[in-house]
Amino acid sequence: MNLDAVKFDERGLVPVVIQDADSGEVLTLAWANREALERTLQTGQTHLYSRSRQALWKKGETSGHVQDLVEMRLDCDGDAVLYRVRPHGPACHTGARSCFHNPVTPEATPPLGWVLEQVWRTIQDRLETMPEGSYVAKMHAAGLDRILKKIGEEAGEVIIAAKNPDAAELAWEASDLLFHLLLTLAERGLGPADLARVLSERHQPGSEG
Amino acid sequence: MNLDAVKFDERGLVPVVIQDADSGEVLTLAWANREALERTLQTGQTHLYSRSRQALWKKGETSGHVQDLVEMRLDCDGDAVLYRVRPHGPACHTGARSCFHNPVTPEATPPLGWVLEQVWRTIQDRLETMPEGSYVAKMHAAGLDRILKKIGEEAGEVIIAAKNPDAAELAWEASDLLFHLLLTLAERGLGPADLARVLSERHQPGSEG
Repeated sequence: MNLDAVKFDERGLVPVVIQDADSGEVLTLAWANREALERTLQTGQTHLYSRSRQALWKKGETSGHVQDLVEMRLDCDGDAVLYRVRPHGPACHTGARSCFHNPVTPEATPPLGWVLEQVWRTIQDRLETMPEGSYVAKMHAAGLDRILKKIGEEAGEVIIAAKNPDAAELAWEASDLLFHLLLTLAERGLGPADLARVLSERHQPGSEG
Repeated sequence: MNLDAVKFDERGLVPVVIQDADSGEVLTLAWANREALERTLQTGQTHLYSRSRQALWKKGETSGHVQDLVEMRLDCDGDAVLYRVRPHGPACHTGARSCFHNPVTPEATPPLGWVLEQVWRTIQDRLETMPEGSYVAKMHAAGLDRILKKIGEEAGEVIIAAKNPDAAELAWEASDLLFHLLLTLAERGLGPADLARVLSERHQPGSEG
């Protein structure tokens, strides 16, 4: 937890990239002085420096949308900081999840991790609120065995699709299997972070595969 | 492709967060002037402004590690830009994939998307080089049917693990199934981006689940 390598600019500030720790989405580019970095480390929650108000501030102090720090990193030449965080609400004052919501180019498909996290949050929401007409709620009410039958069924459909010429069919069935795999994890109190942990332990670069 | 909303600072610069479009990993925080943004849009490759050399530069001009632009976004108040890119090599001059390789806090588990992309790149590398002793190479040589038998087997192991009390066993088996699902996609010329596309089309926030 050594901040001596941080190179602050002539105003005593360093830019901070704030990233959602689970989806990987870039939420905000903000600024910090040394005190903001120290407070972030001490409290485990995002603190920044407002250039307009010329004051230290805690993200979410008024909105309640605080951000729990998962990891802090420094770049190669020490003049930029990365906060990986779990946000308790939108990062943007407009209510958007991320501040980077203005497309300059046509929007591209988001990365898989980001999509999986969105799907995962939808699953969590449906399990909590159990709205009528929700597929997740229906499957949860039917129970684990019903979901596991779907795992068997969807795996069979992946196998059949992979033997057929239409690749789009395979992409569809593979997505279905992955979705039901997430449902299975949710039923057993696990989630995408557990897959990330196991896969990153097993597939260290160069170690196997 | 309108850059009029970009607010450049007193030096005529704006900070640019560069993110790997597939893994979601934050690669670099750099700077651009208006010309660098325009060149990036025109050429479809990362251009920046070097504050030390006071000059426009194209990322990878000497190293060959250019970055193809997938998407450009602007933040809510127009004073920060996001480039989502496909890099042709390390982003960092040290040879590291990302410039943010100096941990300030103990390192946390990376997000699932980032891990899946690393696993995917390992699979692609093994299929290209077919090294002896590689599991991926062995399965590819054995053929699609052999991989699909594993899909059936791993799905069965997920079902059994989900019925057993040990959640760690389920995390392990689910990871195995996901790994073999990626192998299946690779055999049929698909990849994680196809899963992302299908899942993001099917699971629009609020639309279903």
